[in-house]
Amino acid sequence: LATEVSNGIEAFFNPRSVAIIGATPKEGKVGRVIVENFKRRFKGKIYPINPKYNEILGLKCYPSVKDVPEEIDLAVIVVPAPIVPRVLRDCGEKSVKATIIISGGFRETGTEEGRRLEEEVVKIAKDYGIRVIGPNCIGIYDNWSGVDTYFLPDKKMKRPPRGGISFISQSGAFASALLDWMAYNNIGVSRAISYGNKIDVDDVDLVEYLGKDDKTKLIIMYIEGIKDGRGKLFMEKVREVVKNKPVIVYKAGKTARGSKAAASHTAALAGNYDIYRAAFKQVGIVEAESFDEIGDFAKILLTQPLMKDNRVFVVTDAGGIGVMLTDALTKQGFELPVTPDDLKKELREVLPPHCIVENPIDLTGDADDERFKVVLEKVLPKPYVDAVVLGALPQIPGMTHKFIDYVVDVWNKYRKPLLVIDIGSEEAVKFKVELENRGIPVYESPERAARALKALYIYSKYVLRGSI
Amino acid sequence: LATEVSNGIEAFFNPRSVAIIGATPKEGKVGRVIVENFKRRFKGKIYPINPKYNEILGLKCYPSVKDVPEEIDLAVIVVPAPIVPRVLRDCGEKSVKATIIISGGFRETGTEEGRRLEEEVVKIAKDYGIRVIGPNCIGIYDNWSGVDTYFLPDKKMKRPPRGGISFISQSGAFASALLDWMAYNNIGVSRAISYGNKIDVDDVDLVEYLGKDDKTKLIIMYIEGIKDGRGKLFMEKVREVVKNKPVIVYKAGKTARGSKAAASHTAALAGNYDIYRAAFKQVGIVEAESFDEIGDFAKILLTQPLMKDNRVFVVTDAGGIGVMLTDALTKQGFELPVTPDDLKKELREVLPPHCIVENPIDLTGDADDERFKVVLEKVLPKPYVDAVVLGALPQIPGMTHKFIDYVVDVWNKYRKPLLVIDIGSEEAVKFKVELENRGIPVYESPERAARALKALYIYSKYVLRGSI
Repeated sequence: LATEVSNGIEAFFNPRSVAIIGATPKEGKVGRVIVENFKRRFKGKIYPINPKYNEILGLKCYPSVKDVPEEIDLAVIVVPAPIVPRVLRDCGEKSVKATIIISGGFRETGTEEGRRLEEEVVKIAKDYGIRVIGPNCIGIYDNWSGVDTYFLPDKKMKRPPRGGISFISQSGAFASALLDWMAYNNIGVSRAISYGNKIDVDDVDLVEYLGKDDKTKLIIMYIEGIKDGRGKLFMEKVREVVKNKPVIVYKAGKTARGSKAAASHTAALAGNYDIYRAAFKQVGIVEAESFDEIGDFAKILLTQPLMKDNRVFVVTDAGGIGVMLTDALTKQGFELPVTPDDLKKELREVLPPHCIVENPIDLTGDADDERFKVVLEKVLPKPYVDAVVLGALPQIPGMTHKFIDYVVDVWNKYRKPLLVIDIGSEEAVKFKVELENRGIPVYESPERAARALKALYIYSKYVLRGSI
Repeated sequence: LATEVSNGIEAFFNPRSVAIIGATPKEGKVGRVIVENFKRRFKGKIYPINPKYNEILGLKCYPSVKDVPEEIDLAVIVVPAPIVPRVLRDCGEKSVKATIIISGGFRETGTEEGRRLEEEVVKIAKDYGIRVIGPNCIGIYDNWSGVDTYFLPDKKMKRPPRGGISFISQSGAFASALLDWMAYNNIGVSRAISYGNKIDVDDVDLVEYLGKDDKTKLIIMYIEGIKDGRGKLFMEKVREVVKNKPVIVYKAGKTARGSKAAASHTAALAGNYDIYRAAFKQVGIVEAESFDEIGDFAKILLTQPLMKDNRVFVVTDAGGIGVMLTDALTKQGFELPVTPDDLKKELREVLPPHCIVENPIDLTGDADDERFKVVLEKVLPKPYVDAVVLGALPQIPGMTHKFIDYVVDVWNKYRKPLLVIDIGSEEAVKFKVELENRGIPVYESPERAARALKALYIYSKYVLRGSI
């Protein structure tokens, strides 16, 4: 476990033992919720630390980390700010490798006392060589090891299933909302980190770690600002990571007014957005410009192969959706090639005469699911087709759940980017869930689908040609 | 009922009697589904017409409309295209007021035969003075009278609850998907019309009718193109309607490529999008530029009072959401005034010192729902506050369902535009449903909320000052 230390922060994610300093049996308190979280999933040793108790939730409690008879890899600190320096010094003397300081009351308060306390903490950490996440943070949720300092009970914040997405969020509340949202949307998560005031471990360390982490297939970041002097290194690390896994960034503090809000929030220097954007582009970051795009982009980037060029074919059972998709894709800069004569001929052979074989290919409302299959079989392998979007409204009488097998089978055969538009109620939701479980991203909105495909295209271009 | 005829099309929506020409007992056939639809909800008389049967689903069946002993207000025609002229002539002789021709096989086929048949139908309708919706359409879903020619069984397309939204869709498939989607999202619908080839009744008639209809509080339109020569009249009618109820238009065929697709789809002249946009603006239409915006805009326009000016205050329990909202609102052109000193003082008196009283007002993660209430009480009535957005993440420990009462109470007291951002799982969804049931629109995405507020602002400006 913690023996294979990657850039010194492995102990945060895979500790053999954890001390929870400020643990308490009191209902509803942060110091209790965190003990409960660890008890639920963590396989290593758990040591509650609090001089007032001998035992907490069935675990032996110690007055200080120094009293624990065994080694401690990770300490989680939830005591009030003024006591943090003392317990951190104890950690140093105990040779604790890593600490997550949950406690607030530091620089973010804007007070002289807060600033002074934070400086003291920085100095102690440096003196003892302890790595710190925080203070004033929600910490780490690790879906593999069970490290879980998100101090919200399961009732308040559902834990998502295991999966390939890791994320780093400068905002703790946003991190918890996003985890909860991902749980609801059945999106698999690997590790989630929120670092608060980031006096030590920051985006650079985390992106490097997650880049090397074989459980992480895609990284999402909510950034207000990169620490002064760390920008260049951050971009270098990302450039390396992006070769193997997509990095989606949501930048907050884009506008002058937003920067000002960010300054009040995390004292972040949100900086000039244009400069950030240019840098993101240079290193292959896919930027999500809205909350929706975070999830929309993640699901296509996680499941679809690279998109070689920008030519898209649309196949639909609803002419209106075909027109909407054509507009949306064109607006994103995609080309919708006119169906070449040989393909037209092939399609004419398998389709009733009233179907439209132009691109968008309109199978019309009397289509059945098999019509999608035979057309997809003709269209997807063509060398001039880089991606296919299916506008497959499930309301038409001929659509059954066989549609899912048909689409997945053809997709598995040719492995080109494929997505589905599906609008409606229970039935549509069932289609969506089944398709997404089998690797085909589904969108309700043609415009959001087009933007998601654009994200895949941008990432593909960067990986294949080294520029966006 | 049909005695109070508004611009001659009341009979489509409130017929006393309906004939279904081409009715059949055969499972899965359009002619059966429509009989079933009417039997389910329609209170008037139902006459199946088919020379092959004496009885269909327990209803007496007649060989022709001419054999029905009583008056017929509405005829729904589902026979094959070549037979349509003959049965339409029968309708004429029977003095049927209105017909919905569901059958396809006319101009949309692009064939000479289809064109000829359509011209014949136009001539017969004119000769007899019969109003026609269609052909090649899905027709009408009326949630009050029970007229329902949407030939999809309930299993395929759920019917939404009754409510204030009516919509007109040039695409039948899109109309059915939208109804289904609205049912799933518990959005109340009044009447939904899809007119297919629109040889007679068109957007002009429908928008005028829905404008006068007291059940309709808001109109949504999916338009590919307005019929040649009807553009000016359409805009005039909309201008009248918009004074009393918002009109949201989704224009398909925006791009050249999309126009071409629209031409294949409904033979619509999608025309120059810039001209449409300019015209929309002039008459106060709120344009939805994506599928999401249709629902996002409808729910704010339906529930919130007019927005007097562009000054917005943000109140949040999550700094990150505050920053996101600030960016999103600023990007939409809203002003986020700096909190004036007197308000700061008032807020300081009721908030703990670590809360941020700047705009965005950050109640921080240790907030409880009551903190929202006391702040909203101070902020909402201020004359320099035109709208408030609450970034209310339900994950924080202090948030309970009392939040809903608090927010609704203050909102009812001051009646200014108010919306809520809420991200998460079951708990968040519960908040959303309860708030929306009580008139407060909820959004998951700060960016979508900002665009929705912009839609309200645009509409308000038009109504209050006569320009957008």
